[in-house]
Amino acid sequence: MKVYFVSDGTAITAEVFGSAMLSFFDVAVETKSVPFLATKDQAEGLKHQINEEMKNTTGLMVFYTISDANIRNIIESCDCHCYNLFGDLLSPIEQALGVKAQPTAQKAHGMKEGVYDGRMDAVNYALANDDGASVKNFAEADIILLGVSRSGKTPTSLYLAMQYGIKAANYPITEDDFSAPGLPRVLKEHKKKLYGLTIDAQRLHEIRTGRMAASKYASSRQCRYEVDEVESLYRQERIPFLNSTKLSVEEISTKVMAEMNLVRHRQ
Amino acid sequence: MKVYFVSDGTAITAEVFGSAMLSFFDVAVETKSVPFLATKDQAEGLKHQINEEMKNTTGLMVFYTISDANIRNIIESCDCHCYNLFGDLLSPIEQALGVKAQPTAQKAHGMKEGVYDGRMDAVNYALANDDGASVKNFAEADIILLGVSRSGKTPTSLYLAMQYGIKAANYPITEDDFSAPGLPRVLKEHKKKLYGLTIDAQRLHEIRTGRMAASKYASSRQCRYEVDEVESLYRQERIPFLNSTKLSVEEISTKVMAEMNLVRHRQ
Repeated sequence: MKVYFVSDGTAITAEVFGSAMLSFFDVAVETKSVPFLATKDQAEGLKHQINEEMKNTTGLMVFYTISDANIRNIIESCDCHCYNLFGDLLSPIEQALGVKAQPTAQKAHGMKEGVYDGRMDAVNYALANDDGASVKNFAEADIILLGVSRSGKTPTSLYLAMQYGIKAANYPITEDDFSAPGLPRVLKEHKKKLYGLTIDAQRLHEIRTGRMAASKYASSRQCRYEVDEVESLYRQERIPFLNSTKLSVEEISTKVMAEMNLVRHRQ
Repeated sequence: MKVYFVSDGTAITAEVFGSAMLSFFDVAVETKSVPFLATKDQAEGLKHQINEEMKNTTGLMVFYTISDANIRNIIESCDCHCYNLFGDLLSPIEQALGVKAQPTAQKAHGMKEGVYDGRMDAVNYALANDDGASVKNFAEADIILLGVSRSGKTPTSLYLAMQYGIKAANYPITEDDFSAPGLPRVLKEHKKKLYGLTIDAQRLHEIRTGRMAASKYASSRQCRYEVDEVESLYRQERIPFLNSTKLSVEEISTKVMAEMNLVRHRQ
């Protein structure tokens, strides 16, 4: 089955929603995004291409989010199943809100006019404060992620910044931190912002082996030791923590947002 | 108007789709995500909270994506408008595919079992190859973004990595590069992978002023000079390029994906 995600914008909404929809079905799917379809000519071109493909297959559908009715009509006249993702919900919501939908207002993934995109600050913050690089900026952090090397701190910080505009610093817990009791001094005054990541020792061993094979750093024994120590540190200090082994960065990030009561800065 | 995005997963699909839907309406909206709603008790708790809120307002709705019918029924019985985002489309798609939807299969933003998440490699690649840090790795790049300092290269590289698993290096074009004719030598052999970013000189001046006020680097004159030079370089060398001034990182990234015919590595 081939699925086109077609949009007059980035096609991100169609992709995210369409992919979620398709994940209900145990069917192999090849997807293709067609963003920024903005003119009738482009729509006719796509229709022609789809109709040509339909001569050799029946396994093709289109999921679309398009504001302009003329362009929508062209897409809907393709020789395949076409689904208007907003179609069925707009009018009930119009009724509930008592307001008419304004097709031209739609720009879900664009820049809001006159609104500075604070996510860029947050991304720069995450980069500047990666791996304990600059602990003096911790006061500015919305959250400080802890964890041993390669437990998922950096991707999580970046995802929190990019998706939610959250300023996430991260601090690597190393063997040095286990020799003294309690939390590293630089973390103590920010205790409410701390959130721990952990990972199964075996998975950590695999990841570190990929990075530096046959090192002490990557050895099963070292990984087991660091994971045990960091988890007892979290428990002793009552730092909320999460095992990232089987989670995607989206799952880790949304769990962190919920547990730490963080509010997205980006609207 | 207050809108709850409720899900048994990350709630990302509900957020993305619900926000896109709401962007059609010129109504002020406060949104709240409720991810990982997985038990009847949690659903009853949320229902109680919503019904309490409904005593003081009528301006509340729920957008949800929930697989389990029992949990769904609890949410649907709240005293407010509730919209099942998948509801209306699942059965037409079942018919088109000739396959029954399997509610438990849904894990749109989770880790695919046994599939290594190549996005983490791509994020690490983007970090290691930011700002021309390691040109020897350019052979491995899917794309190399060019641009003057602060024209949007780093966030775009990271977004391409995180969302699409694309390995994006980036290389800063500086005054040194304008003194010699043509492309910097390290870029010549990778010409097909090059993509340029540019930005309005005035906007660049503002961004650089925020970073280093009253410097030559941030001066209007310097910004104008660098932008003019880099754009003529792109034109001379026939490097495709994009003005990022009024675009979100999502728009830049999806345009780059489309123009460079890049295919997402993550499925």
